[in-house]
Amino acid sequence: MSLSPELSARLKRNADGLIAAVVVDHATSDVLMMAWMNDDALESTLTTRRGTYWSRSRQELWVKGETSGHVQHVREVRIDCDGDTVLLRVDQTGPACHTGTHTCFDTDERLLLADESA
Amino acid sequence: MSLSPELSARLKRNADGLIAAVVVDHATSDVLMMAWMNDDALESTLTTRRGTYWSRSRQELWVKGETSGHVQHVREVRIDCDGDTVLLRVDQTGPACHTGTHTCFDTDERLLLADESA
Repeated sequence: MSLSPELSARLKRNADGLIAAVVVDHATSDVLMMAWMNDDALESTLTTRRGTYWSRSRQELWVKGETSGHVQHVREVRIDCDGDTVLLRVDQTGPACHTGTHTCFDTDERLLLADESA
Repeated sequence: MSLSPELSARLKRNADGLIAAVVVDHATSDVLMMAWMNDDALESTLTTRRGTYWSRSRQELWVKGETSGHVQHVREVRIDCDGDTVLLRVDQTGPACHTGTHTCFDTDERLLLADESA
């Protein structure tokens, strides 16, 4: 299997052949994580409905939850205006983050912003 | 002004010195756009509370809405588990997308997913 020519033509891949993937919890709309996809990862995500990404550190396809069980059932995939990012809505089983938190943005602190009055 | 040494040390920049920025509508939790930040863009965002990014095409800092008036007032900035992505919650004035739609993911079609029964 491979991506349809129509879809492939819409993608604007970076120098490494990747597009960004923003992953949102379908139930809560929380942003769960940011990851990367090559063509195979996107095609696999669309055909299996399992969130599947490209691991830049391991240089291999990575089915989210394959080891941890924290899989993602994909409900919807949208592509952005310039074709370099996709937005996934998923049913997330367990925590999305490898650190065990619900999202990858659940650090203990927020970055310091200027006062509202500033 | 520059980023604090503590924050700077937490960032995992790509080969171009950039981190990803996912931007969410504070009121609706819709994902509005994906953009990129260098250190100056992040520092400017934190100190001015205006969503400020790095334009890869123009190779310059870009204050969102500076031309269009579709500015972003930043409510919250979080950093992800591995330091290569920030999540912004913003009050978006007008459409976030340069095409005039509310978000950059409001294309007319969703990508075709396998049947739920598959």
